[in-house]
Amino acid sequence: MSVVLSRDSQVRVMEDTVTNAEKHLGQFCSMLAAYTRKTAQVRDKADRLVRQLTDFANTEHPEMRATLRSFAEDLAKVQDYRQAEVERLETKVISPLKLYGAHIKQTRAEIKKLKQVQKNEIKQLAKLGRLRQKSPSDRLTISQAETSVQRASADASHTTHQLGETIEAFQKRKLTDLQKIFSDFVTIEMVLHAKAVEVYSSAFQTLENYDPERDLEDFRAKMHGLYGHRDAQPLTETISSPAVPWSLTGQETVLILALF
Amino acid sequence: MSVVLSRDSQVRVMEDTVTNAEKHLGQFCSMLAAYTRKTAQVRDKADRLVRQLTDFANTEHPEMRATLRSFAEDLAKVQDYRQAEVERLETKVISPLKLYGAHIKQTRAEIKKLKQVQKNEIKQLAKLGRLRQKSPSDRLTISQAETSVQRASADASHTTHQLGETIEAFQKRKLTDLQKIFSDFVTIEMVLHAKAVEVYSSAFQTLENYDPERDLEDFRAKMHGLYGHRDAQPLTETISSPAVPWSLTGQETVLILALF
Repeated sequence: MSVVLSRDSQVRVMEDTVTNAEKHLGQFCSMLAAYTRKTAQVRDKADRLVRQLTDFANTEHPEMRATLRSFAEDLAKVQDYRQAEVERLETKVISPLKLYGAHIKQTRAEIKKLKQVQKNEIKQLAKLGRLRQKSPSDRLTISQAETSVQRASADASHTTHQLGETIEAFQKRKLTDLQKIFSDFVTIEMVLHAKAVEVYSSAFQTLENYDPERDLEDFRAKMHGLYGHRDAQPLTETISSPAVPWSLTGQETVLILALF
Repeated sequence: MSVVLSRDSQVRVMEDTVTNAEKHLGQFCSMLAAYTRKTAQVRDKADRLVRQLTDFANTEHPEMRATLRSFAEDLAKVQDYRQAEVERLETKVISPLKLYGAHIKQTRAEIKKLKQVQKNEIKQLAKLGRLRQKSPSDRLTISQAETSVQRASADASHTTHQLGETIEAFQKRKLTDLQKIFSDFVTIEMVLHAKAVEVYSSAFQTLENYDPERDLEDFRAKMHGLYGHRDAQPLTETISSPAVPWSLTGQETVLILALF
């Protein structure tokens, strides 16, 4: 009877193995999918920042414009790498974890089949036991029942052995797949981070090299120079001259009214 | 009159400068805040993954357990760096941009003051113009009005000059602050990415070194060895022995019933 118990324990180990894998790999799948989605959202927010930097650059003086455009381009490059990160996480991390759903379902079906075979063995054993108690002298029927037990037992032994190999292969695949999936995760992340360091190093240089002085000259000229006056002189110097009698043209009146 | 127009243009340049800065710096502030929030959410998702890896590690065989724990620790380290990134972005990027709110409000108040002074100048000019048309011979009143115009004009000239300096300082501060804020952004991002490359390189090595073979031996022993049977033998070898008459103990009956 200890062999039946042993087989029962084996089945429980098998079931636990599959249930545990189903639970944890499913959780890894949804957590890594959530991580990837949030990463895609970081990319979206950075893309908006890129557009905003470009818009702002167009309103700025030449040096800052060039600096902001260069910075925006670098920031956009990092987002391209982030997009590649997201796609690779989906392909090499999330998809393989999703595939476990089908794989686990199939293994569960095989375990169910083994349990049926085991049930049959126990049923035949119980039948033989009852026969031996009720009709110990019915040699023919007992002999037939013994043959059925042998057949059911050989079947159970064979199926258990087969399933043992299946579960071992399942466990082996799980371990090597997890190793591969997490290695891929780390590689994908490393590529992003390494590329980002490279791009941001160049962006940092561009920003460091920016000198506001030329833009400020440009700004001063714009602020003071629209009518050719670098500095506005007191108005009285003009109007106190008797040679220029004070009068308002129509256009100037409109302007003044608009200012009140 | 061209000086009045020139001053008016200057004021418009000043207003545009402040309005443009208010609009774009405000947008940068909210976009960088959104970027930072999403980064914090990536950190949260990765933190959940760390906990899940630790939970799963506890259900695994020794080699995988050690590998997953080491991987989880490295992943947690990257999240610590991400947390530092989030805090530094808040302090060195978002906060300085937020401070512009108050700075812009103050500059707007100064522009408003200038516009009042300009209005007064134009009002005095208009009054003088009317007097010269209506009472060209009233020298005393015209002389008083001319003095008022001179005073208002000197006031406007002085205020415009002062505000010009204020706006130039505002623009200079804006340019150098943006340079600093974006440089800080890039530096903060670079630190995260560089640290992540470092940590993930070590994580990659740990995962590469994992060898599933010893865990599989452990797994085989667990699956087959709970009752000391490496392989389950056909049950018939035991029960066909006449020295062991078939009977079910209470415990075994419960087991069998549970199996049906």
